[in-house]
Amino acid sequence: MITSHANPLLKDIRRLQARRARGRFVAEGEDLLAAAHEAGWEPEHVLRAGVEVSAAALATVSALGSGTRALGVFAERWAPPTGPLCVALWGVRDPGNVGTVLRGALAFGAASVALGPDTADPFGPKAVRASMGAIFAVPVARVASVTELPGTRIALDARRGTPLPELGRIADAVTFVVGAEREGLPEDVIAACDAAAHIPINNESLNAAMAATLAMYERTRVPEA
Amino acid sequence: MITSHANPLLKDIRRLQARRARGRFVAEGEDLLAAAHEAGWEPEHVLRAGVEVSAAALATVSALGSGTRALGVFAERWAPPTGPLCVALWGVRDPGNVGTVLRGALAFGAASVALGPDTADPFGPKAVRASMGAIFAVPVARVASVTELPGTRIALDARRGTPLPELGRIADAVTFVVGAEREGLPEDVIAACDAAAHIPINNESLNAAMAATLAMYERTRVPEA
Repeated sequence: MITSHANPLLKDIRRLQARRARGRFVAEGEDLLAAAHEAGWEPEHVLRAGVEVSAAALATVSALGSGTRALGVFAERWAPPTGPLCVALWGVRDPGNVGTVLRGALAFGAASVALGPDTADPFGPKAVRASMGAIFAVPVARVASVTELPGTRIALDARRGTPLPELGRIADAVTFVVGAEREGLPEDVIAACDAAAHIPINNESLNAAMAATLAMYERTRVPEA
Repeated sequence: MITSHANPLLKDIRRLQARRARGRFVAEGEDLLAAAHEAGWEPEHVLRAGVEVSAAALATVSALGSGTRALGVFAERWAPPTGPLCVALWGVRDPGNVGTVLRGALAFGAASVALGPDTADPFGPKAVRASMGAIFAVPVARVASVTELPGTRIALDARRGTPLPELGRIADAVTFVVGAEREGLPEDVIAACDAAAHIPINNESLNAAMAATLAMYERTRVPEA
């Protein structure tokens, strides 16, 4: 059993938690490990308190603190952006929002979540936790340009375009492109999309996760033609 | 200017932040103070760093840490639960979810948010912050029983009842009753409601804030008869 806080694996895990090393990531807690298992992901390492590692040594690598019971180290997986339903995030820096979008994508059956420039790392500890395990079930892609996105690209904007409920089933494959809460989408990204839509609301903004989830809900609620 | 960390007002604010004193609450940050002002709320006290209080002394009462610039103390306001659109939370202990529901209620024009038993304090610092100022714009009510809720009461359940998109416009006034993420609604609460509905999703659950917001969106997207 690992008890030394200077153990090389623990040092490696600390670097992964801080995202100073990439290519692999850490998922903490029995629920996340169960989600990984269910989705067929094999961990490179599993550390359980009192089994592979002492509780005290495990606490030194936890992003959650001393209460953690187990964690796993996994290889990152990146996929191409695929449809028929894809959500693309642009400039969404909050990792909690990225994780929540993954969760919504799993709920509404999106085929992938694409991450554009200036968007939080989906494999960071906060995003993984907020995903509630969806990081293991929904393919994530990195994209540099709107042109890489599948299907008809619809920019979700605070005010412009068609009201979301009136969008109807405009295409078999759709990507919703969602920006950050205050900044919204850059003009060149909106211009590169095929259409714009907005969620009719009374006040300024919904956060990116809420907007993306409402768009996915709207898409899945429209009956097939 | 207040510089002593032992100043009686600062002591009072610490108690309010920890919710050891009730009846009043603290909103931190210039955005929240602006939201309060816009909604016509007069603060009992305003403390701005370098004006009424030293930055160091202000940091000792902040729930955000040393970066805070301003905070206000306000009297809590409680309202009756009113329609035509109301969201009622039952057993939603996470204050971030309560704040996010308030934000969604403002976005979709709900008349009130009702808080049932075992639901987080909407005036606690985390709920106020998550509300992004909606705490000042949306009336909040405390209720002990489903019978106090306005209109047709619809229990949002993970699996039971009508799929939300098929609910249609069943009544002029509606309350959506939403439970906690894992537990859902207690059986007696579901039984006391007039109908049940679920959001058709692939996996286990959406959080309470997402479920409530989707229900409000669905309600507002249905055209008037």
